[in-house]
Amino acid sequence: MVNLFFKPKTIAVIGATANPKKFGNAVTINILRNKNIESELFLVTHKSTEIMGLKCYRSVIDVPKDVDLAIILVPAKFVEEVVDNCIEKRVKRIIIITAGFGEIDEKGKIVERQIAKKCREAGIRVMGPNCVGIQNLDIALNASFLQIAPQGNISLISQSGSFGCASFYAMEKENLGCSKFANVGNNIDVSFSEILEFFNEDVNTHIICIYMETISDGRTFLNTLKRILPNKPIIILKGGRSPKGMKAASSHTGSMVTNYKMLKTSIKQAGAILCENVADFITALKSFYFLPIPQGEDIGILTNSGGSSVLFSDKAEEFGLNLAEFSEELKEKMAPHLIPLVKLINPLDMIALAAGIQYYEITKLMLEDPRIDIIVPCVVIPPFLEMDPSEHYRGIIRAWNETKRIKPIIPLIFFSQNFETLISYAKEENAPIFFTPHEVAFSAKIIIERMKFLSKL
Amino acid sequence: MVNLFFKPKTIAVIGATANPKKFGNAVTINILRNKNIESELFLVTHKSTEIMGLKCYRSVIDVPKDVDLAIILVPAKFVEEVVDNCIEKRVKRIIIITAGFGEIDEKGKIVERQIAKKCREAGIRVMGPNCVGIQNLDIALNASFLQIAPQGNISLISQSGSFGCASFYAMEKENLGCSKFANVGNNIDVSFSEILEFFNEDVNTHIICIYMETISDGRTFLNTLKRILPNKPIIILKGGRSPKGMKAASSHTGSMVTNYKMLKTSIKQAGAILCENVADFITALKSFYFLPIPQGEDIGILTNSGGSSVLFSDKAEEFGLNLAEFSEELKEKMAPHLIPLVKLINPLDMIALAAGIQYYEITKLMLEDPRIDIIVPCVVIPPFLEMDPSEHYRGIIRAWNETKRIKPIIPLIFFSQNFETLISYAKEENAPIFFTPHEVAFSAKIIIERMKFLSKL
Repeated sequence: MVNLFFKPKTIAVIGATANPKKFGNAVTINILRNKNIESELFLVTHKSTEIMGLKCYRSVIDVPKDVDLAIILVPAKFVEEVVDNCIEKRVKRIIIITAGFGEIDEKGKIVERQIAKKCREAGIRVMGPNCVGIQNLDIALNASFLQIAPQGNISLISQSGSFGCASFYAMEKENLGCSKFANVGNNIDVSFSEILEFFNEDVNTHIICIYMETISDGRTFLNTLKRILPNKPIIILKGGRSPKGMKAASSHTGSMVTNYKMLKTSIKQAGAILCENVADFITALKSFYFLPIPQGEDIGILTNSGGSSVLFSDKAEEFGLNLAEFSEELKEKMAPHLIPLVKLINPLDMIALAAGIQYYEITKLMLEDPRIDIIVPCVVIPPFLEMDPSEHYRGIIRAWNETKRIKPIIPLIFFSQNFETLISYAKEENAPIFFTPHEVAFSAKIIIERMKFLSKL
Repeated sequence: MVNLFFKPKTIAVIGATANPKKFGNAVTINILRNKNIESELFLVTHKSTEIMGLKCYRSVIDVPKDVDLAIILVPAKFVEEVVDNCIEKRVKRIIIITAGFGEIDEKGKIVERQIAKKCREAGIRVMGPNCVGIQNLDIALNASFLQIAPQGNISLISQSGSFGCASFYAMEKENLGCSKFANVGNNIDVSFSEILEFFNEDVNTHIICIYMETISDGRTFLNTLKRILPNKPIIILKGGRSPKGMKAASSHTGSMVTNYKMLKTSIKQAGAILCENVADFITALKSFYFLPIPQGEDIGILTNSGGSSVLFSDKAEEFGLNLAEFSEELKEKMAPHLIPLVKLINPLDMIALAAGIQYYEITKLMLEDPRIDIIVPCVVIPPFLEMDPSEHYRGIIRAWNETKRIKPIIPLIFFSQNFETLISYAKEENAPIFFTPHEVAFSAKIIIERMKFLSKL
């Protein structure tokens, strides 16, 4: 069903153009530019006979093969006629990128309903209108006018195309990657739930995330969440949580608004991760992307900075996190690696003298300790004593690797975004890096929630 | 009083060393490395006769000139003796960087109280112990073992040295700069309030910020805030807001903890900006660093991304912000610059086609409109239609410059941290750039609070 949108053998871009100032050009280039594609591309326009070396057909009806997926980019007033052609051609799936329908006025709503009805009767499934398209990074298919997302195991469904675009910037920045992306726009046919079911069955999708503004069938949606959540974590950001936001959302996609409070309760009960802002949304992606689910909820903290462990402890309290009590055995093992000034309590403040080797030894001891489930190493990168800016982080990751990454570590490397060697080391190692106490505490909270959810199944 | 700590004519580093693995070396290098210094440096140690071309004195008593500021880095057990020498030498100010006093145990508390008493009787003011030192960026004086902060007009007092260090990384990243920095450590003599009074009188300090964990004299502190706030904004982050955080804080600086709820109410009543996390703290710095105070609280929003204006509208509601209603006159002026699809309502969704020129024209019209006080231009950088990634932002800043930066603009360039040309353009222009809806809404909220505070005076 939804599968064919993401894995078409043949694609027709209707409204292709050589004019780089048009979306029809962007989509054509995006499909052509990515070499690994498994789909054959046909261009449809009556304005040119050839674009970028590819022959153009005057109508989709003239395309010499069966068309799995038609992507429509002609002006709004021609869309219905083009859809009729697609029906005649027995095209299997349609994405209408063109805007100017239900999000504009009542007339637009009527036209899009009519298109939906026609396609339903012809057995054709539709995404859009008013969308940016889809991507399947596994086969390097970028059937959208956005930049191609970095590849990975997150699949995103977004009711806003630009939110998808912004998320890709954030993913790039955080070393995350995407498997599938769908922007449903005005959402006249294919439902959120159908796409979610597809993500659930897709072996390359490990994490599912959703940006939604409105939902037409809440009950089906919630049931779908419940079915998927035992298999994969689902992270949700809802736009239009407040009257002002709902007003903006209604103008954006022309859909009815949803009562957020009710939705919130239901989503949380279902076991999904609901985020209240975009920063938390990205933190949630990072958490499930890089971290294993813990076996318990006791956290061990080590730091070279009293301030950062104080700030993290505040956040730990805010999020209801448990700090482990160090066992006598652990204290004995840790002591030889630390100067006598260091008090053997959690958070373990190793003071500013602590170097990479201390971070390695202590992180490893905590990783091996049966009473500690999650390790939070906090570092303010020392600009003194000839320390290497990444040595602490390297020590942490070395310990994590040597213990086979079985337990989650959530390294807080305070405001270290501009340390390029550190960031690129994290990328090489495919390892997590967090920048503020809030991020780390939120991350710990949601992986613990996931553990509790899974343990109740 | 406090002045002399920041503008000493003569400095003695006691515990200087050529060993790069010691803090005594870091402080010596940091003072020497910065050329513009107005202070003469003397090194004191009995382990060397010369370090980096400078003669070493065996005791501070041997230094051939009067000493304005002695910086003590000898091991804890020698500190009291060195302080006695300083008293004999009639040194005017002392910073004790050495740790291992009140933050460790009762014995340490007794020793530091004794030192405080001696110095008080001798008329010597003391900062520390257990601190990283101070900086005065106006004269490129880095009398600390931290990296030198970027120069600017923010003055920071921090109870945690490493928080200072992390803040400098964040300032560097956000194109902010510092005028003065003080880390008070165990805070045995010079009070927060005295340093704040100095910042108040200092012409190069436009913004004051505080990281505090504990406060010994709350009443004096609050009175000081009240005295300063009509002149300069004060931004406060409190570590140890919760039982867990207070426990960590008490272990960190050995001071008594403070009831956060009471403090919170008093600080807010006084008119200071109290932040609940480090990200908001940096956002607050950015806001006062780059933005003028508005004349009213009505916000005009323009966007190329429905999703981002929905997400901002939610945050606007959360923070109690007012969206302006567009006047007929403004609508008439805006219409010619926009395609007919665009609905002339606030937030103004110009859809993905909007380019730099539309951002310039519409931002300028809003800046010139008497009913709009704050402009929030939202951009998801379009990766299509051959647009330049920074053209929208350039259009916004051009409009702001042409209207002489009289009204605040708070540009939300969604997740654009990795666009280097954009970030460096912002730096060149000394212009603000924000990355998430939360940041922008928080920024609007606090500059409006400041306006209201000032209007009541």
